Amino acid sequence: MLSNQLHNGLETAKLLWSRIPNSEAGEVDGGSLLRNSNRNTVESLDYEVIENYAYREEQAQRGKLYVGYYVAVKWFLALLIGIGTGLAAVFINISVENFAGWKFALTFSIIQRSYFAGFVIYVLINLILVFSSVYIVTHFAPAAAGSGIPEIKGYLNGLDIHGILLFRTLIGKIFGSIGSVGGGLALGKEGPLVHTGACIASLLGQGGSSKYHLSLRWLQVFKSDRDRRDLVTCGCAAGVAAAFRAPVGGVLFALEEVTSWWRSQLMWRVFFTSAIVAVVVRTAMGWCKSGKCGHFGSGGFIIWDTSDGQEDYSFEELLPMAVIGVIGGLLGALFNQLTFHITYWRRNYLHKKGNRVKIIEACLISVITSAISFGLPLLRKCNPCPESDHDSGIECPRPPGMYGNYFYCGKDKEYNDLATIFFNTQDDAIRNLFSAKTIHEFSAQSLLTFLVMFYTLAVVTFGTAVPAGQFVPGIMIGSTYGRLVGMFVVNFYKKLNVEEGTYALLGAASFLGGSMRMTVSLCVIMVEITNNLKLLPLIMLVLLISKAVGDAFNEGFYEQQARLKGIALLESRPKYQMRNMMAKEACRNQKVVSFPRIVKVADAVSILQSNLHNGFPVIDHVRNGETLVIGLVLRSHLLVLLQSKVDFQHSPLPCDPAGVSKSIRHNFSEFVKPVSSKGISIEDIHLSSDDLEMYIDLVPVLNPSPYVVPEDMSLTKVYNLFRQLGLRHIFVVPRASRVVGMITREDLLIEDSEDSASVELHSTSVRGHRQYSMISRNVDVERPLLNGLLLQDHMLG
Amino acid sequence: MLSNQLHNGLETAKLLWSRIPNSEAGEVDGGSLLRNSNRNTVESLDYEVIENYAYREEQAQRGKLYVGYYVAVKWFLALLIGIGTGLAAVFINISVENFAGWKFALTFSIIQRSYFAGFVIYVLINLILVFSSVYIVTHFAPAAAGSGIPEIKGYLNGLDIHGILLFRTLIGKIFGSIGSVGGGLALGKEGPLVHTGACIASLLGQGGSSKYHLSLRWLQVFKSDRDRRDLVTCGCAAGVAAAFRAPVGGVLFALEEVTSWWRSQLMWRVFFTSAIVAVVVRTAMGWCKSGKCGHFGSGGFIIWDTSDGQEDYSFEELLPMAVIGVIGGLLGALFNQLTFHITYWRRNYLHKKGNRVKIIEACLISVITSAISFGLPLLRKCNPCPESDHDSGIECPRPPGMYGNYFYCGKDKEYNDLATIFFNTQDDAIRNLFSAKTIHEFSAQSLLTFLVMFYTLAVVTFGTAVPAGQFVPGIMIGSTYGRLVGMFVVNFYKKLNVEEGTYALLGAASFLGGSMRMTVSLCVIMVEITNNLKLLPLIMLVLLISKAVGDAFNEGFYEQQARLKGIALLESRPKYQMRNMMAKEACRNQKVVSFPRIVKVADAVSILQSNLHNGFPVIDHVRNGETLVIGLVLRSHLLVLLQSKVDFQHSPLPCDPAGVSKSIRHNFSEFVKPVSSKGISIEDIHLSSDDLEMYIDLVPVLNPSPYVVPEDMSLTKVYNLFRQLGLRHIFVVPRASRVVGMITREDLLIEDSEDSASVELHSTSVRGHRQYSMISRNVDVERPLLNGLLLQDHMLG
Repeated sequence: MLSNQLHNGLETAKLLWSRIPNSEAGEVDGGSLLRNSNRNTVESLDYEVIENYAYREEQAQRGKLYVGYYVAVKWFLALLIGIGTGLAAVFINISVENFAGWKFALTFSIIQRSYFAGFVIYVLINLILVFSSVYIVTHFAPAAAGSGIPEIKGYLNGLDIHGILLFRTLIGKIFGSIGSVGGGLALGKEGPLVHTGACIASLLGQGGSSKYHLSLRWLQVFKSDRDRRDLVTCGCAAGVAAAFRAPVGGVLFALEEVTSWWRSQLMWRVFFTSAIVAVVVRTAMGWCKSGKCGHFGSGGFIIWDTSDGQEDYSFEELLPMAVIGVIGGLLGALFNQLTFHITYWRRNYLHKKGNRVKIIEACLISVITSAISFGLPLLRKCNPCPESDHDSGIECPRPPGMYGNYFYCGKDKEYNDLATIFFNTQDDAIRNLFSAKTIHEFSAQSLLTFLVMFYTLAVVTFGTAVPAGQFVPGIMIGSTYGRLVGMFVVNFYKKLNVEEGTYALLGAASFLGGSMRMTVSLCVIMVEITNNLKLLPLIMLVLLISKAVGDAFNEGFYEQQARLKGIALLESRPKYQMRNMMAKEACRNQKVVSFPRIVKVADAVSILQSNLHNGFPVIDHVRNGETLVIGLVLRSHLLVLLQSKVDFQHSPLPCDPAGVSKSIRHNFSEFVKPVSSKGISIEDIHLSSDDLEMYIDLVPVLNPSPYVVPEDMSLTKVYNLFRQLGLRHIFVVPRASRVVGMITREDLLIEDSEDSASVELHSTSVRGHRQYSMISRNVDVERPLLNGLLLQDHMLG
Repeated sequence: MLSNQLHNGLETAKLLWSRIPNSEAGEVDGGSLLRNSNRNTVESLDYEVIENYAYREEQAQRGKLYVGYYVAVKWFLALLIGIGTGLAAVFINISVENFAGWKFALTFSIIQRSYFAGFVIYVLINLILVFSSVYIVTHFAPAAAGSGIPEIKGYLNGLDIHGILLFRTLIGKIFGSIGSVGGGLALGKEGPLVHTGACIASLLGQGGSSKYHLSLRWLQVFKSDRDRRDLVTCGCAAGVAAAFRAPVGGVLFALEEVTSWWRSQLMWRVFFTSAIVAVVVRTAMGWCKSGKCGHFGSGGFIIWDTSDGQEDYSFEELLPMAVIGVIGGLLGALFNQLTFHITYWRRNYLHKKGNRVKIIEACLISVITSAISFGLPLLRKCNPCPESDHDSGIECPRPPGMYGNYFYCGKDKEYNDLATIFFNTQDDAIRNLFSAKTIHEFSAQSLLTFLVMFYTLAVVTFGTAVPAGQFVPGIMIGSTYGRLVGMFVVNFYKKLNVEEGTYALLGAASFLGGSMRMTVSLCVIMVEITNNLKLLPLIMLVLLISKAVGDAFNEGFYEQQARLKGIALLESRPKYQMRNMMAKEACRNQKVVSFPRIVKVADAVSILQSNLHNGFPVIDHVRNGETLVIGLVLRSHLLVLLQSKVDFQHSPLPCDPAGVSKSIRHNFSEFVKPVSSKGISIEDIHLSSDDLEMYIDLVPVLNPSPYVVPEDMSLTKVYNLFRQLGLRHIFVVPRASRVVGMITREDLLIEDSEDSASVELHSTSVRGHRQYSMISRNVDVERPLLNGLLLQDHMLG
């Protein structure tokens, strides 16, 4: 009787669970990692399972129309993410350009009278901007510090780091970036833009921020963890697309660098988002060209069109280009190592002392940066402009009326080479470094000075409590030594068609490759920002070398920073040591805490209090004292059951197995993970002593078939299973005593019937169909193509 | 005693197997699908497992130097694939252009005297070319017929279709393409180029073709199935890159359309290959510009630079563009349906009658095509050229000296609009259709005639026994109706800045989208071939619509063709019906055939003869009559054991467990799958009656831990497991009675030690390390970042 009831109950649970596609696959684990660490920063994602079920149920109830609505909202959200990220990027750029432009214009006008007064004004403006940035970050949005890419990477790998996708983080990131970049620090706005895109995506997916009463109910169809991750992936791609105006590069960046799981269906939507961003940015820039955006003109966005650069390259140039790759690898690896140590020191000593220290630190660095960028160009003399010649296209780097390229030199036909890169906005500086037809615009001495100083500043600046990207500093460092090598090549090979700007571009690629170790996406981004497909093979050569050189020393920049922040990423490949380990060994120091099928409330509470596990096996006793593992129950679901109390029963016997719907007394949205809170904790639950004497039947909420592995399976295999399917829990079980069947490829080739939606509830017709395909398989086949033709007969018939 | 020995033996096997990374993951099943179908066309891939082991052993023996060599060869092969595919593409293009150019020039000179003689010559030349193509294919390389993309897709999905990657197929594909495309049939050379790239990759990976004594031993390091698949993926991308000169598009095509498994490590190598192709093609074209390649000039490669096309688009143009999308979806879906039916009829009736029918069919179609393309333009009158005007850039489509655009009109300043697209090489025709600044170059009547005739021809031609791609016909069909819509827009909106060429481009994108249902890769390819990033949002809009419209009617072109050819692809998502099914149901009509641990040779032979399964569970009896599933043994490995006989033993007791190396008497390369033969069959094995009385211990060759699923697991989950990990066999076992442990994310976060290579054989030090990380996990953590910092202390220390 009891076992019969169990059987029925299991059938029920199975029925529920079997309707959930990918109920385990695609779910992502985060919580268990941090079982032992502080639960405030990182929490569990264990909600998807029932949520997914609830969602599908809901969907099934509302029918096809709802599915259409769901798909439409998906695409509409992609559109909104694109527009939002594009507008955020435009806003940041316009603000930065205007602040910086105004700052330089003011300083320039004052130094006509007094250098010292100009210096004071320059330092003060920078200080104010940086202070506002660091103040916003420390007091309002602590998660907005840094680039945000390691955190997003962690989130998409399955970790839910508290606070990174909140509305306040978004605001902090946008205004913090404006302050820190506008304030002239040696950092960029690209990483923060990726984070901004991810925040926008996440907030839109939640239908707005509930805390600030901005939520829209009709957008709240994305309750599953996978949908949210997909949106954040779109947001990342949008961020890169906005930062570099590189839609294809954005997609590839999201694919290569950020996501851990990728579905080809997602790619199209990500690409759509990126294209929308490109349209928005282009439209805004077109609108601004007429002068409506103040100082924001052609600049502001990283787009350096070097299509008038070097057309062809000779074989002997490959050697200096390879040298650039080696330098990039070395300097990039050194950069990673230095920032790692400094960030480590900051985290452990400096930033422990509170926000005041963080603010003082950022302000100090701002003053030093201002002093260097103002003072160093003073030591250089002004050079006369080269002969302006329309045919050769040689131009003075300081044309009248051009924003940027201010400084010092009183006469119109003179310029200060160090000032054009140091005392300038980043974008104009890079444009000068990349410029073609400007042989010997810069002296080697200036470039070397800039390289050393800027490298040091970039290392020191990274890790302060302001939003900080590493792309632009990387490009500036790289293009400086690239140009140095280019100058050497021009002198050595005595060729006129060698362009220093091309070498600067290759240098930039090499440094980014040596530091971040991106490959395809970096290549495509460099091609898109320079709009010159011909340089692709050269960029690739340089990247191949610099990545290989860098890999010989240490990990990539984002991986190191993630490690430093305690973001433990599950890599796509198992570790080498796992080859010699078994599944059993991986969990040998755990005591497995299991639940019986019908559990007394008091027992359930004490089990939940006694440990921090997020999932528990449910084990039932059948006849002759044998036990049977009947499934997995999640802590979060148990807590919901305990809190609502509606499932409590007086008898320790199974609930009525016939009434599935009765046994599920919950609105399933109760099981959905709350958007920005931490969910229920065991401490929040208050039960009377009567309640504690009651029982709960766990069958309705358990997952009846979690993935299992035999105890002596190689850990490499277990890792692949866990990682590829994005699991949270795997049961390690003893070896089986018999094999019931074998599943091979042919068993899984079930033909999809034309009207799969209509047969949804008629499982008999599905079975019939299935039998059909089985019969067709068993026919003795003479012709090789019969298999296909049988299927096709069916299709045509 | 016996059970002890078993234990030792299992330990041994485990030791061997646990060292194999991804021993199941990444392996691909093909054989079992066709267990019941003809074994001549499709065969098993079941060799990777031991092969992988053998390979790793070899590697371990040779040490680090060998690993370096292996990586170097990998990249060197990518280089070779790029160069080879690039050269093949150049060769095909030069040949086609020269044959076609010579053909048109000759015809043109003859029709000055006699139209009839010109017609005869034209038909004859086409006939000879097509005949040579169909003769090569039917008599020499049957696998070279068609586009080859469905087959390659099937191969990368895990099917090994006989003959598609042979040297003769490569030759047949190259020369067949030259004949069929040069002969003026309504088909393209892009699909065949993808197949060519895949063949080159596969042959290079094998170190050449052993049949033709072209094999190189030093290249034969790629014995595992995964390495071969990776190379073929590179080849596919190279083919697309060569066909369209679109390196990024090639990578995305391989990613989106062709592969089933994708690793980000592979992406960089694929991209490298594509870039090499671009360099080779560019170099060859630069070399040919000086006139060294005959008729092959700027043409030949699909590269239509419409960067001088429409700069901007107005909002009201979006409606006609959406109309183009709808037309594309409808015509594309219709195209798929028609080709499906015709190809079905051909396969089942026409082509059954032998090669003679195939040849006659192709020749007949050639004559009809020639007659239409020669005859129809005759019905149109010649138009005077528009006023040549350097400022407006309007040009006559028949400039003197330009190859292509021949025909009829005696006077220099006249042209025949139908002839410029019909009586022309494909590339010149497309260039004419895409041309900007040519409002009303074509009459609506001509375009409509061409559309109807060419559409019909393309439908009829596809499926004949010649190499045939669908890209170029698709582009021609699409650009024709696109231009028609463009003409309507010009007339309706009365705007001069609307370019018909832009609409033609959008039309081409819409037809390809409606037929092939590619998205991102098609978008990028269109952008790369037109070199105009500004059109990206428009192309995307059109593709979104046409794909959605097409999907409402049927599957994509390649999927339909694959189904027709009996290539059953395992899709990335489980079927809907699987939600209601259990693992047990998927294999319910199978009788599980299992082996005991020590099997009598006679029994083994009779089991192998009695069925066609490729894998068998091995079940051992332990104390008290209980049984234990100890692993999976593959048919192919059993056959090797039976053939070599060295493992035969007289006693039915386990072989000496201490001497692992003794028990492995084989050179493991015996277990490696032969490159282009079918492997051993049970009929090939001849055993004496003495042999039949002996025993084999299966422990050394079995896979001790195949993946298992409980019998009542949802089939959706089983499918995901099978598909995501690329498995061949899953054991369905009863539910477990207890849980030994749980594996969660944290259990798999083992820190990689710096010198993982050196600890390879010192498992104790690995254990020590492991214990370290376990201790660190169990410390009660106060600070959220301690976890990361502990790891990092270790790193720094």
